[in-house]
Amino acid sequence: MKIIIVGATGTIGKPVTEFLEKDHEIIKAGSKSGDLQLDITSPDSISKFFEQAGTFDALISATGGGHFGPITTMTDTDFRTGIDSKLMGQINLVLIGQHFVNPNGSFTLTSGILSSDPIQAGVNLSTVNGALDSFVKAAAIALEKGVRINAVSPDVVEGSPQYFSFFPGNIPVTMAQVTQAYVKSVMGRQTGQVYKVHGS
Amino acid sequence: MKIIIVGATGTIGKPVTEFLEKDHEIIKAGSKSGDLQLDITSPDSISKFFEQAGTFDALISATGGGHFGPITTMTDTDFRTGIDSKLMGQINLVLIGQHFVNPNGSFTLTSGILSSDPIQAGVNLSTVNGALDSFVKAAAIALEKGVRINAVSPDVVEGSPQYFSFFPGNIPVTMAQVTQAYVKSVMGRQTGQVYKVHGS
Ligand SMILES: NC(=O)c1ccc[n+]([C@@H]2O[C@H](COP(=O)([O-])OP(=O)(O)OC[C@H]3O[C@@H](n4cnc5c(N)ncnc54)[C@H](OP(=O)(O)O)[C@@H]3O)[C@@H](O)[C@H]2O)c1
Ligand SMILES: NC(=O)c1ccc[n+]([C@@H]2O[C@H](COP(=O)([O-])OP(=O)(O)OC[C@H]3O[C@@H](n4cnc5c(N)ncnc54)[C@H](OP(=O)(O)O)[C@@H]3O)[C@@H](O)[C@H]2O)c1
Repeated sequence: MKIIIVGATGTIGKPVTEFLEKDHEIIKAGSKSGDLQLDITSPDSISKFFEQAGTFDALISATGGGHFGPITTMTDTDFRTGIDSKLMGQINLVLIGQHFVNPNGSFTLTSGILSSDPIQAGVNLSTVNGALDSFVKAAAIALEKGVRINAVSPDVVEGSPQYFSFFPGNIPVTMAQVTQAYVKSVMGRQTGQVYKVHGS
Repeated sequence: MKIIIVGATGTIGKPVTEFLEKDHEIIKAGSKSGDLQLDITSPDSISKFFEQAGTFDALISATGGGHFGPITTMTDTDFRTGIDSKLMGQINLVLIGQHFVNPNGSFTLTSGILSSDPIQAGVNLSTVNGALDSFVKAAAIALEKGVRINAVSPDVVEGSPQYFSFFPGNIPVTMAQVTQAYVKSVMGRQTGQVYKVHGS
């Protein structure tokens, strides 16, 4: 399979890439790193990226940022951080990528536990993650040519100790657990699923 | 109670307004109709609106549009319709309105069944509704001064026969059923809830 991994050098993307590159052709993508560069916040950049990358069998997105902070001072501009990056960045990978994916190919996006298990400073990312979980359910019945789409919803991962204090009581999941959720999405035949990798 | 109803003249807002105005002071708001006008797609307009409306005990939002259409031709611009209107419009009512709501007051937003029960042309609204359901769960633990927030998630309503053909097999819910979900959110004490008014 030819698999594009956006965010291949990230905390989550790296072990996923290392696992899949044993058996597949991987195109690693990032804003600065990887084989090809793109900026997911720009639809033009995404279009140019797919023109270069060509057709593919699977795309994994393990990227996208959002705003952390108290709601009491949050503004429209703060909130748009996650909307423009993690939400519309990943959605535009699908809206544009659907014209480059091979029949029966797949998209795997990354949401996160905050959609259902919120934390104090995470209102923006909760919203974005909930949006992504519903997007894959809806896109799964709308995409053509047998193309599948799922999301992986990780808990805080063991590779990100800098986030542990924001997630009191959450049990970090291992990189091996998270990696297998992406493998299940790409290699399995299900669609419209949210693969939860939650520590508790 | 002083209750602001944004979308008070709409299919859903009208019966909600008629029920609550028997016992409460209602400020009806819309882009063209009502006591006060605002455009929810503009944070500036929302700020000016609250300056005029003053402090309040409850805000109900029964407004917001999105894009209907096939995913195969959907663009970033199409998708932003629902992001800017139904999603960020309602979120900005909360981000800005939190500075005007009285202690122990409440916000009630409107999402919809498409978050979990998608239809072919509804990818944009599924995403927006999922975002709103997660937003209220997260905002509920982040808002201060005892302020509550819930969403009402209606199925297609009997007052909107123009939508019935998009929802094959959905059993339209009555306006009386939908109205009581808003009443429960405003008059009850729960927070972070998604009140589903689903026909099946
Ligand atoms: N870490 C966790 O505990 C955790 C838990 C739940 C969910 N998640 C979600 O998982 C995803 C990945 O998180 P992570 O912790 O692995 O992130 P990370 O370590 O910061 O890695 C981000 C990756 O995305 C690339 N990237 C950054 N900005 C980009 C842009 N504008 N366009 C294209 N690529 C870009 C980076 O490469 P360059 O440096 O080359 O740009 C890097 O490969 C995020 O959506 C995050 O919310 C993470
Ligand atoms: N109808 C259904 O079957 C159904 C089912 C599930 C969910 N919903 C959701 O329920 C909400 C209301 O739907 P509805 O069918 O009642 O809508 P509607 O009949 O079209 O009414 C919309 C209301 O919002 C106001 N409005 C429109 N644009 C506005 C703007 N930019 N700024 C401020 N106010 C604005 C309108 O007043 P003006 O004309 O004065 O602007 C009107 O009062 C929407 O979020 C919809 O997605 C509806």
